Amino acid sequence: MQNKLKFTIDWQKWKARAWTIELNWKTVKTPVFMPVGTKATIKWLILDMLNDPKYLWDLPEINLILANTYHLYLRPWEKLIKDAWWLHKFENWDWLILTDSWGFQVFSLGLGKEWKKLFKLTNDWVKFRSIHDWSRHFFSPESCVDIQCDLWSDIMMMLDVCSPPWITDKKFKQHLRLTHHWAKKAYDHHQSKYDQVKWVLFPIVQWWTNLDLRKESAEFLSKLAPDGIAIGWVSVGESQEEIQKVVEFTTPLLPEDKPRYLMWVGNPEWIKYAIEQWIDMFDCVLPTRLWRHWVYYSDQWYTKIGNTKNKFDHSPLTNTCDCYACKNFSKAYIHHLFREKEMLGATLLSLHNISYLHRMISKIREDILKW
Amino acid sequence: MQNKLKFTIDWQKWKARAWTIELNWKTVKTPVFMPVGTKATIKWLILDMLNDPKYLWDLPEINLILANTYHLYLRPWEKLIKDAWWLHKFENWDWLILTDSWGFQVFSLGLGKEWKKLFKLTNDWVKFRSIHDWSRHFFSPESCVDIQCDLWSDIMMMLDVCSPPWITDKKFKQHLRLTHHWAKKAYDHHQSKYDQVKWVLFPIVQWWTNLDLRKESAEFLSKLAPDGIAIGWVSVGESQEEIQKVVEFTTPLLPEDKPRYLMWVGNPEWIKYAIEQWIDMFDCVLPTRLWRHWVYYSDQWYTKIGNTKNKFDHSPLTNTCDCYACKNFSKAYIHHLFREKEMLGATLLSLHNISYLHRMISKIREDILKW
Repeated sequence: MQNKLKFTIDWQKWKARAWTIELNWKTVKTPVFMPVGTKATIKWLILDMLNDPKYLWDLPEINLILANTYHLYLRPWEKLIKDAWWLHKFENWDWLILTDSWGFQVFSLGLGKEWKKLFKLTNDWVKFRSIHDWSRHFFSPESCVDIQCDLWSDIMMMLDVCSPPWITDKKFKQHLRLTHHWAKKAYDHHQSKYDQVKWVLFPIVQWWTNLDLRKESAEFLSKLAPDGIAIGWVSVGESQEEIQKVVEFTTPLLPEDKPRYLMWVGNPEWIKYAIEQWIDMFDCVLPTRLWRHWVYYSDQWYTKIGNTKNKFDHSPLTNTCDCYACKNFSKAYIHHLFREKEMLGATLLSLHNISYLHRMISKIREDILKW
Repeated sequence: MQNKLKFTIDWQKWKARAWTIELNWKTVKTPVFMPVGTKATIKWLILDMLNDPKYLWDLPEINLILANTYHLYLRPWEKLIKDAWWLHKFENWDWLILTDSWGFQVFSLGLGKEWKKLFKLTNDWVKFRSIHDWSRHFFSPESCVDIQCDLWSDIMMMLDVCSPPWITDKKFKQHLRLTHHWAKKAYDHHQSKYDQVKWVLFPIVQWWTNLDLRKESAEFLSKLAPDGIAIGWVSVGESQEEIQKVVEFTTPLLPEDKPRYLMWVGNPEWIKYAIEQWIDMFDCVLPTRLWRHWVYYSDQWYTKIGNTKNKFDHSPLTNTCDCYACKNFSKAYIHHLFREKEMLGATLLSLHNISYLHRMISKIREDILKW
């Protein structure tokens, strides 16, 4: 095994594919769901639960997770993490890390009227405010690569502009061109300054449900994607049909021989659909956030643990999952934890939800290989 | 091994002792600290972490924890837990469970002016209000034993009266006599109705720092303690000197050949002192609650993780502990988790704190055996 990103095509045919990706002496089997560890921790869990048969039972280990550049830059600061022998050591994760850059954070944090106040775009950088103390900061396409290298991200995302859907078409186009201009700068910086063997850089194809712009973006950014490419700026409120249309339209425009990463999608049905469109990588905060609504993934779509009938139900969350939560606890117990506001409830549901998606995707991979 | 409570005296001499307690085919080595799982979960942890070398490293397994009768009676209801094949199966804990009864809960929840409204005492029972919905309930000494048997507690506590320190001496004495009357009723009920081989029942010696009443209580209740006895109603605000005085005064009055359990004491120095007075068992919520103050046990007494200097400190919480938190994470990382309000911070500190007390006591046991 080597540390340069390398793909082995295990199986690929209309309409799905299974790959082995090797990077920095680690292996990832695709399709893959990546749990989100925004601030150097996956909420309600301990990271190495994802590699422990006690918690995932017979499932393959999970060995690729996310972290977020924007958050870790603000706090605790990427130089502090570098001092700690990088993010892997800091958060005690021996496997691969992909870092999202900043776009969605600035967008989602500034959604609404605050949006314009929160950042200012120029041709070469974006100036923005910290959500913590309103202090001023800036990212350039180059500095965003530098920060991610300081974190020692294995797979980095380029800086992009995520503008909200209510701006004018003219502005949309301006932002798209700016994202492309930045992508070129990020690409050149990465090529000239860094060892591309260690750090891999993905551009992010834009733009919302506008197919003309999607086409322009896919065609331009495909040339700046030596190792992989992401489809971003989707799954932020559209209908299933809209997302499917975007995915179906965009994927044929992307390089066939590179991993494709569909950002922010955690709905099981949408993942299944996207895998059939040759998407390889997924991430979403949903599995560690559904507990807020007392909800978990099940074969009946979503199930509410809070339902009164679960109070006396001594059967497991699901009958098809072998995760730690399903194997060892009853609905009645987890219902009790939620009623009593005991944190273990969030832990068990989050563990189950990650396990559920991971199991579903691993099963799809097996099916693809058997085809 | 048998299921009847049995002690093997490993070492006993002025002024400390190390025993092996066998009960229901399980073994506990004393002195022992019992983590508190009030509502069928130990806050911020998964119970079986306490038996997993991944988390406690080379420490002996922890195999005796607490739960609370009052809370589990109100929610989810002891009959529901019985239906789930008892508390062990419900909370997924294969080892021993000790259940506290109700006294301290009613006291602590009704502390202040609400105290009188919250419950009403008669010769045969106590009527009290639920903290959840203000509904009316009652416990008798007998029903309190029944409830604990329904939970399948391995070691049960008798129903007692914990009155606040500001009542008159006359009332104190009345409550003491009532506690003794109840103890006799609980003892008789337990002897006549239940298999004393499976369920062990401890009385609780009262009363605050009043040594005359302590003497009366210790002498009376020692006769109703075939398997062990607790010293209660201490460590609720007294000074170290007062507690030491009570412990030093009370222990010589207790049966020498039975386990002694000092309730609610989690201060490392006080535990050390009490072990030298032949106390065998301890419990306290402190290890899983100190994180609220961003504090953890260390050889420098308590240490604040929130101190600014910890922000850049890449060394572990302590240099003397091998728990999962100390082995894998830095002060800087845990400081970051606290600043970002990430739950993993509470998990890591709680795990460390339980591990710290367990290590300290296990070390004392080794020292006792080597003496």
